[in-house]
Amino acid sequence: MSQNASKTLEFYYDFGSPNAYFAWKALQGVRERTSLNVIMHPVLIGGIFKITNNQPPWQAFANVPNKMKYMQLEIQRFIKDYKLTEFKFNSAFPVNTLLAMRGAIAAKEAGHHETYYPAVFKAIWEADKDISQPEVLAAILIEAGLDGDAIIEATKMPKVKKGLMDATQACVDRGAFGLPTFFLADEMYFGKDRILQIEQAISQS
Amino acid sequence: MSQNASKTLEFYYDFGSPNAYFAWKALQGVRERTSLNVIMHPVLIGGIFKITNNQPPWQAFANVPNKMKYMQLEIQRFIKDYKLTEFKFNSAFPVNTLLAMRGAIAAKEAGHHETYYPAVFKAIWEADKDISQPEVLAAILIEAGLDGDAIIEATKMPKVKKGLMDATQACVDRGAFGLPTFFLADEMYFGKDRILQIEQAISQS
Repeated sequence: MSQNASKTLEFYYDFGSPNAYFAWKALQGVRERTSLNVIMHPVLIGGIFKITNNQPPWQAFANVPNKMKYMQLEIQRFIKDYKLTEFKFNSAFPVNTLLAMRGAIAAKEAGHHETYYPAVFKAIWEADKDISQPEVLAAILIEAGLDGDAIIEATKMPKVKKGLMDATQACVDRGAFGLPTFFLADEMYFGKDRILQIEQAISQS
Repeated sequence: MSQNASKTLEFYYDFGSPNAYFAWKALQGVRERTSLNVIMHPVLIGGIFKITNNQPPWQAFANVPNKMKYMQLEIQRFIKDYKLTEFKFNSAFPVNTLLAMRGAIAAKEAGHHETYYPAVFKAIWEADKDISQPEVLAAILIEAGLDGDAIIEATKMPKVKKGLMDATQACVDRGAFGLPTFFLADEMYFGKDRILQIEQAISQS
């Protein structure tokens, strides 16, 4: 494995996962410190849970109050450690992200993914937007300089729908069971709390 | 909070948790690098699960193969990162640790806990001993220079039994839902994978 290959991180995300947002934000610092190259892969978290027989932690641990409290504590600690002052919990959570994830696939095909995903991540986790609504999503994209209406239209294409399903299945085939999931070379890492280990692994390589 | 207080780590453990063993081993390096003071608290993991309505991960995720595989991967990575070459999975897992944890309470009362717990951790996770058997446990303790028979006898005392129950309840009252659980000052951390964060928190304090 060449040195360059080990410094590319693949990042599987769904906008609906606050932990994916947290990881994306925390990685910005790592990218600056290490010249890490990050490839973002849009997938559907609901699809991953369905295929793998898993469920979101807030559902799995709904009846374990101490675990729920600790997850909140870890979120607060993460926000503090990485100074994520712009975060605002989304009032529509859990948000249906099927439209927005199909839009990410469409934007990727059109070569606009690098503009698309930061705009949508900020809309859902900083500006409290309900991105499940086509007109809301279109407005966010237009504000980011994209052709919002064309992307919304493209989400209806069978090719785009299938593209999201295939990407989700491919993610599961690599071993994922939730998000965010990362691959550094072929080493898999799960969860926002692996950012520290990932940075350590990069620094040591 | 004084500087000394922030460098004392409270560590709640049960011998039955391989992750508690891993964390204990990994912390030995942190102790050397940072002069960290660690206070070990014996508690019953089965009691924690029962009180908090939680269950062990290998049970909770039994039907999520990708998660099970990832947990194995993380164990292998942890072993490699911390060079835990002496680890050997226990063939009697999951081991009933009621006797050994009561023994820890008895040893603590007698002022022998610092000899007791390393001997038993090594017996279960390095030497593949079935510590649920009184004669096996007694032999381990005798080899460590303790009065094995007296400790086994002490585990039958109501005061010792109650001591373990009270310690377990106190741990849950502080917020625990599984093991290993740590407190650095009053900040709670869960799991072997928080050792890196704990060391970072200590270095920054």
